[in-house]
Amino acid sequence: VDGAAHERALERHAGLAKPPGSLGRLEDLGARLAAISGHCPPPVPSSPAVVVAAADHGVHAQGVSDWPQEVTAAMVATVASGGAAVNAIARTVGARVVVVDVGTLRLGPVPDGVRDERVRSATRDLAVEPAMTVEECRTAIGAGARVAAELIEGGTDLLVTGEVGIGNTTASAALFAAFTGADPADVTGKGANLDHGRTPHKVEVVRAALARHAADAAAGARGPLATLASLGGLEHAALVGVMLAGAAARIPVVVDGVVTGSAALAAVALCPDLAGYLVAGHTSAEPGGRTLPDRLGEPALLDLRMRLGEGTGALLAVPLVQAAARVLADMATLADVTKDAGQGGSPKVFGGG
Amino acid sequence: VDGAAHERALERHAGLAKPPGSLGRLEDLGARLAAISGHCPPPVPSSPAVVVAAADHGVHAQGVSDWPQEVTAAMVATVASGGAAVNAIARTVGARVVVVDVGTLRLGPVPDGVRDERVRSATRDLAVEPAMTVEECRTAIGAGARVAAELIEGGTDLLVTGEVGIGNTTASAALFAAFTGADPADVTGKGANLDHGRTPHKVEVVRAALARHAADAAAGARGPLATLASLGGLEHAALVGVMLAGAAARIPVVVDGVVTGSAALAAVALCPDLAGYLVAGHTSAEPGGRTLPDRLGEPALLDLRMRLGEGTGALLAVPLVQAAARVLADMATLADVTKDAGQGGSPKVFGGG
Repeated sequence: VDGAAHERALERHAGLAKPPGSLGRLEDLGARLAAISGHCPPPVPSSPAVVVAAADHGVHAQGVSDWPQEVTAAMVATVASGGAAVNAIARTVGARVVVVDVGTLRLGPVPDGVRDERVRSATRDLAVEPAMTVEECRTAIGAGARVAAELIEGGTDLLVTGEVGIGNTTASAALFAAFTGADPADVTGKGANLDHGRTPHKVEVVRAALARHAADAAAGARGPLATLASLGGLEHAALVGVMLAGAAARIPVVVDGVVTGSAALAAVALCPDLAGYLVAGHTSAEPGGRTLPDRLGEPALLDLRMRLGEGTGALLAVPLVQAAARVLADMATLADVTKDAGQGGSPKVFGGG
Repeated sequence: VDGAAHERALERHAGLAKPPGSLGRLEDLGARLAAISGHCPPPVPSSPAVVVAAADHGVHAQGVSDWPQEVTAAMVATVASGGAAVNAIARTVGARVVVVDVGTLRLGPVPDGVRDERVRSATRDLAVEPAMTVEECRTAIGAGARVAAELIEGGTDLLVTGEVGIGNTTASAALFAAFTGADPADVTGKGANLDHGRTPHKVEVVRAALARHAADAAAGARGPLATLASLGGLEHAALVGVMLAGAAARIPVVVDGVVTGSAALAAVALCPDLAGYLVAGHTSAEPGGRTLPDRLGEPALLDLRMRLGEGTGALLAVPLVQAAARVLADMATLADVTKDAGQGGSPKVFGGG
């Protein structure tokens, strides 16, 4: 990111027609957008798109979810038909929805409106073996990057991350534990389950996966890509690709909850500079996700106690990102206002008491 | 508000295609919108408007502000010309901006684009005498109600409250203290000042005003209207009118920060049922405003550490209100999704593990 543009944005904010600092976090966010784009004022994003990456998880066999795996494909079809929460919220904020199947368990063809980028039919069971080969993981990253790059080519100027995948909060907890060193008990939550009945078991499954992965790593499977392949899902990998493509094009990427957040951890481990392009949209309800803001350097913009995923929380942050850019672009300066007020154009008159 | 519609909305949410409760506060907000409109699903607001009420304050003579009073008229002109923060944010969320002068200190004519509803040129100094007569206060309430009713007549279906007025956080602190019984030291902040240098003095001014008002009340000037007239500003009164008109038309009114929040306290004191129509948009940075969510029954939707006023924080909550209505209107049910998944349409399959 461009530190000089960041500085210019902060200076510009100090001269706008308002008490200094009175737009709070919107000012910091505007400066980050300047740093991301390299321009001050930064462009106002007008064509947001949410990429909903979908896949199934071999770890479902361990009994980590209240929901049958068929729900993943059913929810993908619901997103494609416009009836999911992500669609309703995307309509509200004017965002395009692109749902990408990178590896659901399905017998029939991919329905209309779903981008077919299936790498394999669900991951392997991460509790007992690597969820993906490194090659499969790379392919899923490439699929996400390709989808995002095509969107950007078509005019998308703000990327939002979303996902669907029964079992994916277990994989997310494993990624959080692996990338942060946290104890599984501290980063594992109920996910989409109705209550915490399965949570202690999820913790044990994550613990087993980490032990298995540690042995694999000792045998040579080291590094962020190997960790992502070992413990993540195909949708996590695809979202890493989305983030990389966004950063490469210097556009902001909004992170949603714990699943996209764990993908963000993997992406930043692969490419530390990427952190500067990520905006935490909504506070995760999962204990792992709740640590993410510290890791991305700022709290999430929203905390509405949502825990649905799909990109719903991140989408609600889109107008905040747009507003942060627009105030920098549109506002009059304090000097303009003092001139209008016959104060001789000196901001000092305003601030000096 | 309509309690039966509220119940129907909660029931509807329980059957939508997502884990129950997973949209968090958006679900509660949707139920409130159903209660406000009397319909489930509630209409999705498509024509928001922010009413920016502007006035000056006699209490400025006490040295409560870093800013000269001329800034009020200068900021009104800036809003009218589209260069204020409220304009930039309104553009982002698709809201109309209506700026109403209910009593600025100005020598010349009201500029183009400003609605002229001046009741008097600034209030009297509330530290030493009632800021307004009850009649002036009524007139300002009527002006706000008229502006809002005309907007609603013209299609506005979501009202947002905003204000401009150098000195108005002092009046707001006095209203908070009077309506809640809080000590002035606990509800008075720096407002638009650059630092807390004047805050102890502001506390003493508020204390003097409350003592003066208590004496007036003992002499017969009792009741919420007398309190608002005694301690408030013309913009507070106008905003009470906006809130009353919104509630009368069964549309939600979004509260911004400490100034609109203190107007909300007065409005709810005048008409307790009004509380059900108010949505706290952004957490106030002022200590008085921070107590408001408890009084309105819910925390504010946003906390971006903004402290500008003008309606900026409330406007940023508009897409959240729209999204809360839209998910209720647009989402598929769990039964639809299970049917698609060949699960026989029983939500039980999804929740039962």
